[in-house]
Amino acid sequence: MAELPAPTLYSCAGSRGLRASWAAEEAGVALDLRMLPFPPRFECPEYLELNPLGTVPLLVDGDSRMTESCAIAHYLAVRGGADRLVVGPAEPDYAAYLDFTYHADATLTFPQTVYLRFARFEKGKGLEEAGLAYARWFGARLAKVDERLATGDFLCANRFTVADICVGYALYLARRIGLEDQLTPRLVTYLDRLTHRSGFIAALAHEEDASRAAGLGGAVI
Amino acid sequence: MAELPAPTLYSCAGSRGLRASWAAEEAGVALDLRMLPFPPRFECPEYLELNPLGTVPLLVDGDSRMTESCAIAHYLAVRGGADRLVVGPAEPDYAAYLDFTYHADATLTFPQTVYLRFARFEKGKGLEEAGLAYARWFGARLAKVDERLATGDFLCANRFTVADICVGYALYLARRIGLEDQLTPRLVTYLDRLTHRSGFIAALAHEEDASRAAGLGGAVI
Repeated sequence: MAELPAPTLYSCAGSRGLRASWAAEEAGVALDLRMLPFPPRFECPEYLELNPLGTVPLLVDGDSRMTESCAIAHYLAVRGGADRLVVGPAEPDYAAYLDFTYHADATLTFPQTVYLRFARFEKGKGLEEAGLAYARWFGARLAKVDERLATGDFLCANRFTVADICVGYALYLARRIGLEDQLTPRLVTYLDRLTHRSGFIAALAHEEDASRAAGLGGAVI
Repeated sequence: MAELPAPTLYSCAGSRGLRASWAAEEAGVALDLRMLPFPPRFECPEYLELNPLGTVPLLVDGDSRMTESCAIAHYLAVRGGADRLVVGPAEPDYAAYLDFTYHADATLTFPQTVYLRFARFEKGKGLEEAGLAYARWFGARLAKVDERLATGDFLCANRFTVADICVGYALYLARRIGLEDQLTPRLVTYLDRLTHRSGFIAALAHEEDASRAAGLGGAVI
């Protein structure tokens, strides 16, 4: 059987696409990584032909198209046969694994983007308070992750999994956008544990190389 | 082997918990449904002992606790052995299934809640425009679902799955909160197809019975 071509990931430096490229590194899946200028819907309008929403990341794998970073991270782990990175239905932490992989974007990252929009990118338009309200909302929601880590180094099954990639990115983003003061000491320690992994470091280096190859600078946020 | 006790779902009428109770009906999983007044963090402070975030839904199943509605819907389908409701890694639409179950809350429902907060619940505080911006953002993101439905009655694998439950709830919520004008005719037809299912009707009736048993009125939104 012929080897499958590498899936293509379209992303922007430092964006949620890092969940996907990090998962690929941890799972040993080769990615054709294409970095785009930010925001792609304005800076790279031809991208809209590939992804009409204009969002990143976009994974193209054969006939499949995916735009949700946590779904892509899980998918790449399964595709790479990296069973240790996912938690299956027969394991006691299956419910927690599912819950945290969904929680990471729907409950943790989205409010960060509301903050970024109104309190940073569109600052001065009179809607800062809407952004700050969601920065506080984000901080309050971290209680669930913090409580979970009271009894272990990782979120599920006593091992590093895609749940840590999904949640870890939200904490990494907090550090980058000025919300690190929302992180408890336990969350800071956890984030350091994650960002010192060779898979995370390799994913950042891969982004940097691909950005340079595309003639782009570094992360925009 | 003794039968497992029914999982307990804490919810509020019309909330995202409907994804979970709808999935339970479709999968034939008996639920102990406990309805709470809205918002529970103020109206029912003892709930915070069960779920410190104060959010609904909350599923308690043995030692497992889940708070993400799309994760719970998928989990209950797997728990009920309802293979037809999920799409597995060996099926061609596995990537799409994952993608839509994550997309439904992270990209479709969250912006609706930003709209609800600033343009409805906190109307008059000067941040309406932040809410309206996210109502438009929601509408633009529906293009992905609309395009997908051009070639089939359901989102994945030519059958009704949890992906339809997850995305369908976002469309149902749009209808309830005054955002139905964001739905294309194709999305309205799809929503009608979903809400006429016996599983959806049974889930609404279950919510109503449980609300009455708890001495509560109907949906708050």
